[in-house]
Amino acid sequence: MSTRVCVVGAGVIGSLYAAHLARICEVSVLVRRTEHALALEAEGLRVSGKHEFLASVRATADPARLPDFDLGIVATKATDLEAAAARLAGRSPGATVMTIQNGLGAEEIVRAHGPWPLISAVTFMSGVRHGDTHVEYELDTETWMGPYASELPFERVDEARALLERGGLRARAFADLRPAQWSKLIFNAAVNPVAALTDLPHVGQFAELARSSDLGHLVGGLVEEGKRVAAAAGVELHEDPWEMNVHAVRRGQTAAAEGAYAHVPSMLEDVRSRRPTEIEFITGALVREAGRHGVPVPLHTALLQLVKARESGW
Amino acid sequence: MSTRVCVVGAGVIGSLYAAHLARICEVSVLVRRTEHALALEAEGLRVSGKHEFLASVRATADPARLPDFDLGIVATKATDLEAAAARLAGRSPGATVMTIQNGLGAEEIVRAHGPWPLISAVTFMSGVRHGDTHVEYELDTETWMGPYASELPFERVDEARALLERGGLRARAFADLRPAQWSKLIFNAAVNPVAALTDLPHVGQFAELARSSDLGHLVGGLVEEGKRVAAAAGVELHEDPWEMNVHAVRRGQTAAAEGAYAHVPSMLEDVRSRRPTEIEFITGALVREAGRHGVPVPLHTALLQLVKARESGW
Repeated sequence: MSTRVCVVGAGVIGSLYAAHLARICEVSVLVRRTEHALALEAEGLRVSGKHEFLASVRATADPARLPDFDLGIVATKATDLEAAAARLAGRSPGATVMTIQNGLGAEEIVRAHGPWPLISAVTFMSGVRHGDTHVEYELDTETWMGPYASELPFERVDEARALLERGGLRARAFADLRPAQWSKLIFNAAVNPVAALTDLPHVGQFAELARSSDLGHLVGGLVEEGKRVAAAAGVELHEDPWEMNVHAVRRGQTAAAEGAYAHVPSMLEDVRSRRPTEIEFITGALVREAGRHGVPVPLHTALLQLVKARESGW
Repeated sequence: MSTRVCVVGAGVIGSLYAAHLARICEVSVLVRRTEHALALEAEGLRVSGKHEFLASVRATADPARLPDFDLGIVATKATDLEAAAARLAGRSPGATVMTIQNGLGAEEIVRAHGPWPLISAVTFMSGVRHGDTHVEYELDTETWMGPYASELPFERVDEARALLERGGLRARAFADLRPAQWSKLIFNAAVNPVAALTDLPHVGQFAELARSSDLGHLVGGLVEEGKRVAAAAGVELHEDPWEMNVHAVRRGQTAAAEGAYAHVPSMLEDVRSRRPTEIEFITGALVREAGRHGVPVPLHTALLQLVKARESGW
């Protein structure tokens, strides 16, 4: 029997999961707007960029009309997760649900709305949404997945990983995702608010250390604070967030040399569009963990205050 | 014999000095654009707001055509000071020259271009420039003045103070301006970059302390760092910069209740217009003083890096 998948949220990441998985199994998509659902059912979901194909999906804006599913992938922004999880309540109690939000705390939010065993996941995939039914696949990096709070046999996670790979995506299963999740958390907390406040995409300045007033020192200081919190929380990082920063900057420079645009971190996109940012889920989560473990994080605290103040003006 | 005054720069502050002083003595204005000079000579300089009058001034964009003067007031932005002082070189060597820039270091820049004894000054006056020949006088606060590096008898400073007051401006002479200059430096360093990065005028959030993520904690932290630098530099502050912040916020709230706009700090204006900011003269100067005295200033350093990075994207 084929796995039935439900993807909640059809932004860039949700659309990429839905379209790829629709090539190998039945996929339903739960969106907020009826016209979005109608467009997806009528036109299908087009992927361009790294992959090029048109996928056929079912879609609805009404949770009551959602078909049963075995695997749920909740792919909304962290700021929309509470509402999305509430809409999923009561659906397919036997399913496994995967969370893929930035920051920390997504699992607890979904947990409050249903009994589903949870897969924690993070992804570095990126793309551009060209409309309700067209997503461009930019960075075809891995999705990292692991059982949440040891409540799920690893085999179930590995099955979901295999499913993503059969759909044409890259994925990797971990017995314990926290080292990877925290690496990405610290990377995000060091890059996203800085991009949001400087109006800079993730460009060379983020790794520049030549002068004492160069931005790389701030990004490095944020990484150091984050690493101290991880150590206090007993998490051994999977990757060094500073190396992730340098690597991403270099990849961006290569892309720019090839005429592509530099990557615009999602928090900068949000600030430019005056949308609520994920600051509370990224920097806020890290600052709360720091407080729990008595680690001072003055730089992260300052960025949290600055980004929240910036949002308060909208 | 009446004092002859030359005002260099006719932005908000320069225009306010020039117009008020033109009511009691001969004033020439040195500007960059010929059409600005022609407009000033043809139409005069109009003040509205706190005071309402039309002043007659001489104006030129050519330093060689500048009449002799007894008192020079260099009222450009700090970022334009080097060029302005260079244009003044060789003019009226017997004059006294007053600097009024934000931050630290203006006197050294002027000193490099001429032998004039210098008056250090700071002002909290503010206004709105409605065009080349019209300035609105908003905040009629004092100009604080003092002899630079004890090279000038206090009496000369006091004469200049009396001149400003006869012109209708408020002014105060200090034997040592550094306590007042540093109070304003720390106030500016705590408020201007935060406004520039949050896109907020100087509103209530700057003094808000209710939650740990509130912006007042950042402003307060910046003030504390600044006070430690002042103490290490042997400067006893004239006013507490945090109290200056709270006072200015309250004044803004009163103004807002009366339908006026909240004050937009000049660095936010610069960021909105993508003009070079005074960050190097304000925060940069404070960070350099901190380095000289071995005082750690991680928050000021972070804001310096963020604002410079923001400028680098233009």
